Amino acid sequence: MTASEAAGLLSQWDQILILTHQNPDGDTLGCAFALWNALENAGKRARVCCPDPLPARFSFLYEGYAEREFPVRHVVSVDVASLQLLGRLQETYGDRIDLAIDHHPSNAGFAAQTCLRAEAAAASEIIYDVIRALGGELTPQIATCLYTGVATDTGCFKFSNTTGNTHRVAADLFDAGADAAYINEFLFDTKSRARIEIERRALNTVEFFCGGRLAVMQVSQQMIRETCVDESELDGITAIPRQIEGVDIGVTIREKPDGSQKISVRTTAAADASQICLQFGGGGHARAAGCQMETDYAAAREKLVQACAKALG
Amino acid sequence: MTASEAAGLLSQWDQILILTHQNPDGDTLGCAFALWNALENAGKRARVCCPDPLPARFSFLYEGYAEREFPVRHVVSVDVASLQLLGRLQETYGDRIDLAIDHHPSNAGFAAQTCLRAEAAAASEIIYDVIRALGGELTPQIATCLYTGVATDTGCFKFSNTTGNTHRVAADLFDAGADAAYINEFLFDTKSRARIEIERRALNTVEFFCGGRLAVMQVSQQMIRETCVDESELDGITAIPRQIEGVDIGVTIREKPDGSQKISVRTTAAADASQICLQFGGGGHARAAGCQMETDYAAAREKLVQACAKALG
Repeated sequence: MTASEAAGLLSQWDQILILTHQNPDGDTLGCAFALWNALENAGKRARVCCPDPLPARFSFLYEGYAEREFPVRHVVSVDVASLQLLGRLQETYGDRIDLAIDHHPSNAGFAAQTCLRAEAAAASEIIYDVIRALGGELTPQIATCLYTGVATDTGCFKFSNTTGNTHRVAADLFDAGADAAYINEFLFDTKSRARIEIERRALNTVEFFCGGRLAVMQVSQQMIRETCVDESELDGITAIPRQIEGVDIGVTIREKPDGSQKISVRTTAAADASQICLQFGGGGHARAAGCQMETDYAAAREKLVQACAKALG
Repeated sequence: MTASEAAGLLSQWDQILILTHQNPDGDTLGCAFALWNALENAGKRARVCCPDPLPARFSFLYEGYAEREFPVRHVVSVDVASLQLLGRLQETYGDRIDLAIDHHPSNAGFAAQTCLRAEAAAASEIIYDVIRALGGELTPQIATCLYTGVATDTGCFKFSNTTGNTHRVAADLFDAGADAAYINEFLFDTKSRARIEIERRALNTVEFFCGGRLAVMQVSQQMIRETCVDESELDGITAIPRQIEGVDIGVTIREKPDGSQKISVRTTAAADASQICLQFGGGGHARAAGCQMETDYAAAREKLVQACAKALG
């Protein structure tokens, strides 16, 4: 269904529970709190429910949020691709989601109604249309939530999922008073000292293969322990090996506390990251994918170098 | 004058020379080659003239550019704030610029006519309006040129100069076929090995003052020599000290071949970079400014720590 059809449903509903996915990011949280604000402004009762604690990093998204108790009559999920991603909430709400608003092409169709737009860079682009169709005011707080979703899912308009529509939505969010300057500086232009230190150490481990087209980087538990880097800060460093000039496949092999390896593969258009990770039981997108291996670093590195060399032909 | 008045002039002119500023960046080159394409498409003769050699890094901007010889009848400067920035071209053209199209608030008004829009993040935003007003087609090549200008002057929409209009222009450029995915990956997501190596070494020199609110980083000639980093790659690293969490003033002190120091100051909203640099005969913007000192590193560092501590109050 379209965004305005989804808005049509929402305008008839009340006592609405909004579900985000686990390990919540800027898009799922931005969607949830933008929609919460819009529904509350429309005189409805709504509540946001996240499978994990709300990250302090995104506290500016839930400024003014007040948890209200009411019997839930309708359940809406935002940016949730599958029921597994509801984590602890799956058992309670998995079979009673009335409306899923999502942009993942892999959305499993688990909800009674699905508003899916796979070409949207962020689910926040769709929620923007839903809120527009609801007819209420696009307040500065709603604009800030949606801007955060759009900006985080596109690496601040840098990733190849960005479209003309992404920029058009961003323009309206600027005009509606989104605090974009603060968000950009905070989310995209600030690194902790621990993060800088682990970047430095990880860079020391980079090895090149295939004439410089493949770069493999290690992040060990020892490096994580010694730098005291926060788990949430580690995701960003997986972009580093691919950013080196001439590299078409960048692989980051990160040791988990149990000694297994979490692998992240980033590619240019020259190789398909999801095809590489699929061979090891993982998956993802064409330019960014992941998998896990129950081996040590050296064994994981060898398997990946073989698979990547084959992908580069 | 407005963009459409500037277009009115251009539509009456022919044999037009387009001047860029020296040390050409993505904005001045994007403006120049976008305008060149538009004028050629309108059946006029035009030529781009840059005080320095065209950087190979931006070769995709001048794809299809053909240098044509003709007696110059009109001279237009794009993104040029002052005559000094015309370098070697100042003597020949300094007193005969018919039209300056610019976004620098400090534009000295050196041209017969000036189309100045200080709130534009990039001069390319203005050239976009000029080309629209000229009425020709917004070709993919023109869109690529203007997108490069807008994206480079805003750090890919991250800097605080970005506005709703910046995004609105970007949206249209996407729709017109700008090769944004390539440009973003190439300009914002790729670093040479030498650049990564000098970043690593420079990070080793970072010292903190004022309870972590001031960070000072050194880039010595020895580091530049040993990493073989290209001069053009050094500008980006001046952003690093300010990006460290908690830092309000980030200072980079870069040694020049003659032993003097080139200083770059970046700040959050907590301090005015141009006020700090003004004390040492430099200047710039509130969040990014620069100056030079004819001293060694230690002396420069001491003066800057004092001035910055005072600015932080």
